Amino acid sequence: SKYEYVKEFEEDDKLLRNVYILVRIDGKGFHKFSAAHEFAKPNDVRALNLMNHAARSVMHELDDILIAFGESDEYSFLFRKSTDLYQRREAKIVSTVVSLFTSAYVYYWSDYFQDSRRPLYPPVFDGRAVLYPSEVEVKDYFAWRQADTHINNLFNTSFWALGTDSKDKNEMLFTEFNTNYSKLPAIFRKGSVLLREQIPKEMHKDAIIPTLPETLPGSMSASASLTSSTSSTLEQSVPEPALESSGQVGSESTTPTSDRVAGTNNSALETKDDKKRSIDDEDEVDEDGDEPGSTAKEESGAVKRMKKGIVIDHIDIIGEKFWTGRGAYILAPEKKKKLRSK
Amino acid sequence: SKYEYVKEFEEDDKLLRNVYILVRIDGKGFHKFSAAHEFAKPNDVRALNLMNHAARSVMHELDDILIAFGESDEYSFLFRKSTDLYQRREAKIVSTVVSLFTSAYVYYWSDYFQDSRRPLYPPVFDGRAVLYPSEVEVKDYFAWRQADTHINNLFNTSFWALGTDSKDKNEMLFTEFNTNYSKLPAIFRKGSVLLREQIPKEMHKDAIIPTLPETLPGSMSASASLTSSTSSTLEQSVPEPALESSGQVGSESTTPTSDRVAGTNNSALETKDDKKRSIDDEDEVDEDGDEPGSTAKEESGAVKRMKKGIVIDHIDIIGEKFWTGRGAYILAPEKKKKLRSK
Amino acid sequence: SKYEYVKEFEEDDKLLRNVYILVRIDGKGFHKFSAAHEFAKPNDVRALNLMNHAARSVMHELDDILIAFGESDEYSFLFRKSTDLYQRREAKIVSTVVSLFTSAYVYYWSDYFQDSRRPLYPPVFDGRAVLYPSEVEVKDYFAWRQADTHINNLFNTSFWALGTDSKDKNEMLFTEFNTNYSKLPAIFRKGSVLLREQIPKEMHKDAIIPTLPETLPGSMSASASLTSSTSSTLEQSVPEPALESSGQVGSESTTPTSDRVAGTNNSALETKDDKKRSIDDEDEVDEDGDEPGSTAKEESGAVKRMKKGIVIDHIDIIGEKFWTGRGAYILAPEKKKKLRSK
Amino acid sequence: SKYEYVKEFEEDDKLLRNVYILVRIDGKGFHKFSAAHEFAKPNDVRALNLMNHAARSVMHELDDILIAFGESDEYSFLFRKSTDLYQRREAKIVSTVVSLFTSAYVYYWSDYFQDSRRPLYPPVFDGRAVLYPSEVEVKDYFAWRQADTHINNLFNTSFWALGTDSKDKNEMLFTEFNTNYSKLPAIFRKGSVLLREQIPKEMHKDAIIPTLPETLPGSMSASASLTSSTSSTLEQSVPEPALESSGQVGSESTTPTSDRVAGTNNSALETKDDKKRSIDDEDEVDEDGDEPGSTAKEESGAVKRMKKGIVIDHIDIIGEKFWTGRGAYILAPEKKKKLRSK
Ligand SMILES: Nc1nc2c(ncn2[C@H]2C[C@H](O)[C@@H](COP(=O)(O)OP(=O)(O)OP(=O)(O)O)O2)c(=O)[nH]1
Ligand SMILES: Nc1nc2c(ncn2[C@H]2C[C@H](O)[C@@H](COP(=O)(O)OP(=O)(O)OP(=O)(O)O)O2)c(=O)[nH]1
Ligand SMILES: Nc1nc2c(ncn2[C@H]2C[C@H](O)[C@@H](COP(=O)(O)OP(=O)(O)OP(=O)(O)O)O2)c(=O)[nH]1
Ligand SMILES: Nc1nc2c(ncn2[C@H]2C[C@H](O)[C@@H](COP(=O)(O)OP(=O)(O)OP(=O)(O)O)O2)c(=O)[nH]1
Ligand SMILES: O=P(O)(O)OP(=O)(O)OP(=O)(O)O
Ligand SMILES: O=P(O)(O)OP(=O)(O)OP(=O)(O)O
Ligand SMILES: O=P(O)(O)OP(=O)(O)OP(=O)(O)O
Ligand SMILES: O=P(O)(O)OP(=O)(O)OP(=O)(O)O
Ligand SMILES: [Mg+2]
Ligand SMILES: [Mg+2]
Ligand SMILES: [Mg+2]
Ligand SMILES: [Mg+2]
Ligand SMILES: [Mg+2]
Ligand SMILES: [Mg+2]
Ligand SMILES: [Mg+2]
Ligand SMILES: [Mg+2]
Ligand SMILES: [Mg+2]
Ligand SMILES: [Mg+2]
Ligand SMILES: [Mg+2]
Ligand SMILES: [Mg+2]
Repeated sequence: SKYEYVKEFEEDDKLLRNVYILVRIDGKGFHKFSAAHEFAKPNDVRALNLMNHAARSVMHELDDILIAFGESDEYSFLFRKSTDLYQRREAKIVSTVVSLFTSAYVYYWSDYFQDSRRPLYPPVFDGRAVLYPSEVEVKDYFAWRQADTHINNLFNTSFWALGTDSKDKNEMLFTEFNTNYSKLPAIFRKGSVLLREQIPKEMHKDAIIPTLPETLPGSMSASASLTSSTSSTLEQSVPEPALESSGQVGSESTTPTSDRVAGTNNSALETKDDKKRSIDDEDEVDEDGDEPGSTAKEESGAVKRMKKGIVIDHIDIIGEKFWTGRGAYILAPEKKKKLRSK
Repeated sequence: SKYEYVKEFEEDDKLLRNVYILVRIDGKGFHKFSAAHEFAKPNDVRALNLMNHAARSVMHELDDILIAFGESDEYSFLFRKSTDLYQRREAKIVSTVVSLFTSAYVYYWSDYFQDSRRPLYPPVFDGRAVLYPSEVEVKDYFAWRQADTHINNLFNTSFWALGTDSKDKNEMLFTEFNTNYSKLPAIFRKGSVLLREQIPKEMHKDAIIPTLPETLPGSMSASASLTSSTSSTLEQSVPEPALESSGQVGSESTTPTSDRVAGTNNSALETKDDKKRSIDDEDEVDEDGDEPGSTAKEESGAVKRMKKGIVIDHIDIIGEKFWTGRGAYILAPEKKKKLRSK
Repeated sequence: SKYEYVKEFEEDDKLLRNVYILVRIDGKGFHKFSAAHEFAKPNDVRALNLMNHAARSVMHELDDILIAFGESDEYSFLFRKSTDLYQRREAKIVSTVVSLFTSAYVYYWSDYFQDSRRPLYPPVFDGRAVLYPSEVEVKDYFAWRQADTHINNLFNTSFWALGTDSKDKNEMLFTEFNTNYSKLPAIFRKGSVLLREQIPKEMHKDAIIPTLPETLPGSMSASASLTSSTSSTLEQSVPEPALESSGQVGSESTTPTSDRVAGTNNSALETKDDKKRSIDDEDEVDEDGDEPGSTAKEESGAVKRMKKGIVIDHIDIIGEKFWTGRGAYILAPEKKKKLRSK
Repeated sequence: SKYEYVKEFEEDDKLLRNVYILVRIDGKGFHKFSAAHEFAKPNDVRALNLMNHAARSVMHELDDILIAFGESDEYSFLFRKSTDLYQRREAKIVSTVVSLFTSAYVYYWSDYFQDSRRPLYPPVFDGRAVLYPSEVEVKDYFAWRQADTHINNLFNTSFWALGTDSKDKNEMLFTEFNTNYSKLPAIFRKGSVLLREQIPKEMHKDAIIPTLPETLPGSMSASASLTSSTSSTLEQSVPEPALESSGQVGSESTTPTSDRVAGTNNSALETKDDKKRSIDDEDEVDEDGDEPGSTAKEESGAVKRMKKGIVIDHIDIIGEKFWTGRGAYILAPEKKKKLRSK
């Protein structure tokens, strides 16, 4: 139409190529939201697990996310340098991540806050993209966020434990308290890390291997918590939707509360243009090179039948240990072809 | 911490001052989403009303939105030239609008699709901001979107009516069909316009005066549809949550389906930083200058007791008539002081 | 070649459409440059006239410049809202303006500083583009720059006149001095304005009608100073290259010091892509509608035979008088077609 | 003043940190400019040397330029990743480079085109900045430009040699011609590379060690051409200003044609804000660790007394050989502190 010229006012917002794209989302006014919903102080495990669930949904949809880190009301998503998601259009990337996260947060609310059908009002998150050219900055970024977790949590925990902020009393108690700090659950002290790692092949790929057993609806039962080296018990009341859903693994149609549907063929973002690479299928090839048909040693050698899935843990990402060890694949050089070919 | 330098990689994305900011959101892969949820073809009134409800939530939170227009899976929001929302930071504005819209869409889902607690999977919207320097472009922008409504709807309606796309047959039928086209509900042919207009003071300010009576949960009953000049009946089954809620106007606590809470003191965005101007209170001053206390002629002169509220209509916004008439305030010059003072 | 992919790292830097583009250039380190070349303090008329000459060259090349304003070591150029110069690519526009200005500044140096072939070292200017959406801001922009001229000049003039900055003495003298301030040449007090106005047709279109007669090489002699309402004499020595060139008007080949060649067919910027609109030819049509051939009353009615040319003056551009009077055409609305058609 | 608010319309244009900044300038309409000045076809050594001289001036002023490459009417400047020049403001960087280059080009014109005082009209260059995150892209960038040199030169040389473009004839001759192509001067085939390398300490730091002896005014004589491994003689007439200036090394005041003044204390860009790092002084420290005072073996071991200076060569920068050998320092990792500290 003759009005179409207005479309040309849209500006090109393509992000520089070949640098890491980091998208951070943060709850808007969660000081109030957490109070309105009576979140446990200073850390509400339901709220954190719901955040983790929403983040998993984002990571599940967007294969180019290498790692995600969450704490409090925020989550950070790292995209691979070579991603061409939406041709790197900034508004598309940011708005999609923030919308998907928000959507999942409201969607899965009642699985974590089981006494209420939905929150008292619609929660909102903001989002932004930041570019990081090198590995150093990426590591420092995550160190920055995790250090923030420590600091805030240390402060908040002692603050709430004391129930007062009178200076003198505080200092003494603080010291004492500090010695007990390390006994707190890792999810509080270290936040949550979502990684793409090998999981048993028979495990549903939308399952998430939790550090805190049975806290995540649709997750595997405690016995599957292979990676959970830092788990601990929580004294505050923890919802147990897993009881409800754990028996349902494998029977999709009866699990309306699980987002596994999103993972298989009900993806919100699977359109013709943004065709999802069939990474899941590809990854289901046995690591040991077994023929797909040879299921003989299935029961005996379960560990050998693995595929890539999203796992969660609450570990140190400050310092080199993580990045050269378990997380080494994250910042490993990519093949060059992607860039040059076009 | 020593890691904080990474924050400085965030780029300044402030939008040029003193130009209109237009934010458009659009459902991602709604071709599939509409099919998965068996939306009526080509127009599903439940889906459209849910879109309208979500848009109203956005407009309710963000006072600087002058007008909004929706059709199909998209919505456009026009911010006043002088808005200083988030200091005009682009990512903040876009992500907040898209998050709030998405959140409300999932939140109010079951009020419109009453047979399901939530959608089959979390819906996602993308968003973008576009700058328009002058009134001409703003009008042309809305004309562009509404013309799009006409074209798509005309095509889709005839397409679905025919149930086939054989060329010869089509042409004949198309002509015939076209004559009946104007009998379609205005919401299909013209989309939805959200405006800030005077409404009776006793009406709850989160109510929305609908064109299609009783389709919007929490809205006033049909008798209140003052502005609905283009309403018509719909043959497809329409949900009637209004029956449920219409009796509850005034008794907030018992109306969990209404988002009115967001409007009073449960706003997702009402934080210290983004302090909402108390436009609602201000606007509740009587138009005729009555003292607040003088309620003598209250019953006799109800029309005089008005305040600003959000109303919906399905009218022509292509052409000058709207912009010089009912919509004249939208593009009226603002006072200059805002710009110069700083 | 296989290396060509690197070109795609270039970012799109198109400036928003339909807003004014203002390019300001400013001498780098002219504190030192003016000292090194012993500029008269506080105002050196040779230096100012060289700036004006360079600015004229820019305005001559780029037809979409509506007005230019200069003072001290800076110059501002206003482009029309609808300009499509280099498809509004920011780096192209800024770099071209700054390069052309710099080039002309060095090129014409010896015409103003006649005792030296070239400066002691190559002078440098920086440049930037700023967008202004409305007429209000444009006027305020120029008011800002001209107010700056006043303030600086007032301060500098009194400072240099006093030769000291001892507080007590200053205040007294300042008051006295101030009364004499208005006797200073307008070019010092008000800066320089370049405008596109009607000039006698027989006048070479590269001529510039000066306020200060005979100060600009290649300019018309004093008798042609039609517009010079604010001229005044200068006590400091003024170069008179005009003597040399004034007799040469009409005999192009013998005037190597004039940049008129740039205006006819030696333009630095006239390439196939950036085709210059033949505004000059077009404008040479008689204002009174005379047939091109009818040269009968040529001598008798000289004023009638006019064309557009660049003129200079040193007038108030603060306040409405200029913008509604002589400068009314500058901010007059443009025809809409430019925008919509594409 | 009350007008100052207009300054806030200036947008923040800081370039992403910790990536290479590449500034390329290119002559505007040099097809015409070269014709107007009767440049030798297809390569004019005076023109190329003037380009090189202007580029050297830029590199001399801006210490953060690591390497520069020139061919035809263009020049590319690579800034170190960590540069904080003008806080990485894009317009400042681009406009300054392009202005300085242009200024020097006009300034030194008559040293290369000795029969004319200045060009027929002021030449103009455009400029742009491009970001490159990694070493791969930087190398590929320069390979791209040098490959362009080859292709254009091969084509142009054969084209001009043939004097016609009749297809049949061309092909035959082209083959034959190609065999002689390698005998052309390297400056034509490979372009010009400006590097920062060790030069004898007694050599003036503004000297440039030329590949083509004595073509660059102010340069050292042929005997100093240490690095010139690819030099060759030129049949076309070459200006020899070096004769004039070669005897003058050491006697600054009598060498108006040299830009050495810019290097010492007449720098156009040396202002308080943009304080130039005293790299020159620092680099004048002997490489062999001699005490500054111990000048005993000065005469005997001249090669030991070296400092950093700008040298020129016409060598292959396509392929790894250059980047791992002579140019290895260019892309060597920088110390991290710069980034983190702030
Ligand atoms: N009680 C409780 N509060 C939490 C928990 N997680 C987050 N919050 C609250 C504590 C903080 O007030 C808030 C997060 O801090 P922010 O800096 O993001 O502030 P807020 O979201 O209020 O404002 P913003 O819109 O992000 O600027 O959320 C939790 O598990 N329990
Ligand atoms: N049946 C039905 N479909 C609708 C209705 N409203 C929207 N849709 C569908 C029709 C279109 O396929 C789709 C909107 O078109 P879009 O151009 O936005 O495409 P889509 O969302 O699939 O892809 P996108 O991610 O936006 O590029 O949504 C409705 O009321 N009824
Ligand atoms: N004596 C004299 N000095 C002048 C004249 N015109 C300009 N200047 C000098 C005075 C100021 O020191 C300088 C202009 O001030 P700026 O704020 O532009 O500073 P400057 O160019 O030194 O630094 P910059 O690189 O622009 O930040 O040029 C003149 O006519 N006579
Ligand atoms: N005869 C001759 N011509 C040269 C020499 N160096 C450059 N040129 C000319 C040849 C080309 O026509 C022109 C450079 O090509 P460009 O692609 O930069 O085109 P041009 O500058 O005309 O247009 P532009 O404004 O850059 O788009 O300069 C030379 O040494 N001798
Ligand atoms: O929101 P804060 O205070 O944690 O800090 P920030 O997110 O960097 O600030 P902003 O949201 O204003 O970008
Ligand atoms: O910007 P895109 O790619 O989403 O394209 P669009 O202008 O939204 O058009 P469409 O309606 O096809 O999404
Ligand atoms: O250069 P100044 O100090 O006159 O002020 P400015 O030009 O606005 O500052 P900058 O050159 O740093 O943009
Ligand atoms: O960016 P432009 O338009 O100058 O195009 P370019 O990449 O410089 O190519 P060319 O060599 O044709 O100017
Ligand atoms: Mg924040
Ligand atoms: Mg928050
Ligand atoms: Mg937070
Ligand atoms: Mg779209
Ligand atoms: Mg869509
Ligand atoms: Mg759509
Ligand atoms: Mg400045
Ligand atoms: Mg200056
Ligand atoms: Mg200045
Ligand atoms: Mg070009
Ligand atoms: Mg060129
Ligand atoms: Mg070129």
